[in-house]
Amino acid sequence: MITTDAARTIIAAGEARATEIGVPVNLAVLDAGVNLKAFARMDGALLGSIDIALGKARTAALFGMPTEAIGEFCKPGGTSPGLEQTNGGLVVFAGGLPIRDAQGTLIGALGISGGAVAQDLDIARAALAALGN
Amino acid sequence: MITTDAARTIIAAGEARATEIGVPVNLAVLDAGVNLKAFARMDGALLGSIDIALGKARTAALFGMPTEAIGEFCKPGGTSPGLEQTNGGLVVFAGGLPIRDAQGTLIGALGISGGAVAQDLDIARAALAALGN
Amino acid sequence: MITTDAARTIIAAGEARATEIGVPVNLAVLDAGVNLKAFARMDGALLGSIDIALGKARTAALFGMPTEAIGEFCKPGGTSPGLEQTNGGLVVFAGGLPIRDAQGTLIGALGISGGAVAQDLDIARAALAALGN
Amino acid sequence: MITTDAARTIIAAGEARATEIGVPVNLAVLDAGVNLKAFARMDGALLGSIDIALGKARTAALFGMPTEAIGEFCKPGGTSPGLEQTNGGLVVFAGGLPIRDAQGTLIGALGISGGAVAQDLDIARAALAALGN
Repeated sequence: MITTDAARTIIAAGEARATEIGVPVNLAVLDAGVNLKAFARMDGALLGSIDIALGKARTAALFGMPTEAIGEFCKPGGTSPGLEQTNGGLVVFAGGLPIRDAQGTLIGALGISGGAVAQDLDIARAALAALGN
Repeated sequence: MITTDAARTIIAAGEARATEIGVPVNLAVLDAGVNLKAFARMDGALLGSIDIALGKARTAALFGMPTEAIGEFCKPGGTSPGLEQTNGGLVVFAGGLPIRDAQGTLIGALGISGGAVAQDLDIARAALAALGN
Repeated sequence: MITTDAARTIIAAGEARATEIGVPVNLAVLDAGVNLKAFARMDGALLGSIDIALGKARTAALFGMPTEAIGEFCKPGGTSPGLEQTNGGLVVFAGGLPIRDAQGTLIGALGISGGAVAQDLDIARAALAALGN
Repeated sequence: MITTDAARTIIAAGEARATEIGVPVNLAVLDAGVNLKAFARMDGALLGSIDIALGKARTAALFGMPTEAIGEFCKPGGTSPGLEQTNGGLVVFAGGLPIRDAQGTLIGALGISGGAVAQDLDIARAALAALGN
């Protein structure tokens, strides 16, 4: 189970990395039940990225894998065309990561949006590293 | 304009008061443009209150007044029957408060949900007191 | 058919009256096909009233009568309980008026929101008076 | 902050250019919080373009960039496949532009729709030129 403390640790680490690379982002943390746990919009982050950060976190929580891995299933020639239309719409590019506890159990997901896709992923990884993921 | 720092100060003060009275809640902060700025769900807070906290904050931001004041307009015999059905659905009981800066300008809104209505309002007031509201 | 010029005349007259009584409002004009023709949000008007102004205009255009007259049908004891839930949700308190041409033909509707209900209706009437309604 | 006067100046300039090239359009102005500020449908403009004009303005306001720039991210081979499905659906072809003040701060967005895409963009640029953008 993801605690408020853990969510806050993740967000603080993500914000630190985002500040370091100069990209204000939105950060969303969901629990394993795909329910919102914590959210922060850094000053200057794009409003259009609020929904994307939430969507990345939701997508990663629903499937327990990074958002871009889900994108592989529904890309042209993939096994599951239209997968991204299920669940009310998924976000299938990088920046959403599952969160696991020390035993590897899925306890939630993080979504980052506001920078280029590679920057969002970089920030998401730095954020989860603070939790030992 | 509400900053990330201000939103965090509000949420921390709300959590402190909620802990004091033993009621885990959801806390949502929106900016004056009715866009999500920060959110936290305390450990043990009801999942059904996530949407209510967000709805209270949205309602208070849309009208610049406490949610229960909007409830006065649409209660039986009020001037605006059905008002609560506008804007995709409003939350018109206590726990949502507008946030104003030192000059009295509306800069956002806070929504608290998870306890009894009177507790939610108590927590919301304590949260905003930290900002001088 | 309501022209852009007519819509602009209506909005200008509504804004003048709103300024006179010191109540910034949202003003929405729809055509007889219930499609948006013109809209203006005066500086300082409530964001929550955007949707209500649009809803009042839509309601008055759909039924060719003032919004509060539609409220009579669905008030407790009225002939059509739940009427306000049809058409994706109606707004059934005053501030929406049908617009008619010199021959009395319905050519659209106006919705005003931002003040007390009586003020909104006052502004709506002043706005349409500019068109000879 | 975008004022009613500024919105009206933009719309008037857009209408003048649209009349000049003989293309009736819909013109939508949103503020920086992605809330509707002003709208006008010129006589003869397509009804199907009402929603597109609003969608272009919303898209440009959400991301602070021209709509076609957002289209680059989600075109085949782009970094963000499916981006256009976020935020309740974006409009990612030309005709939506951010509006900035003299200091370069994002204060809103304009959406034009009714002509060919190149005509819509031409009109949008002429409209914003009136504000010095």
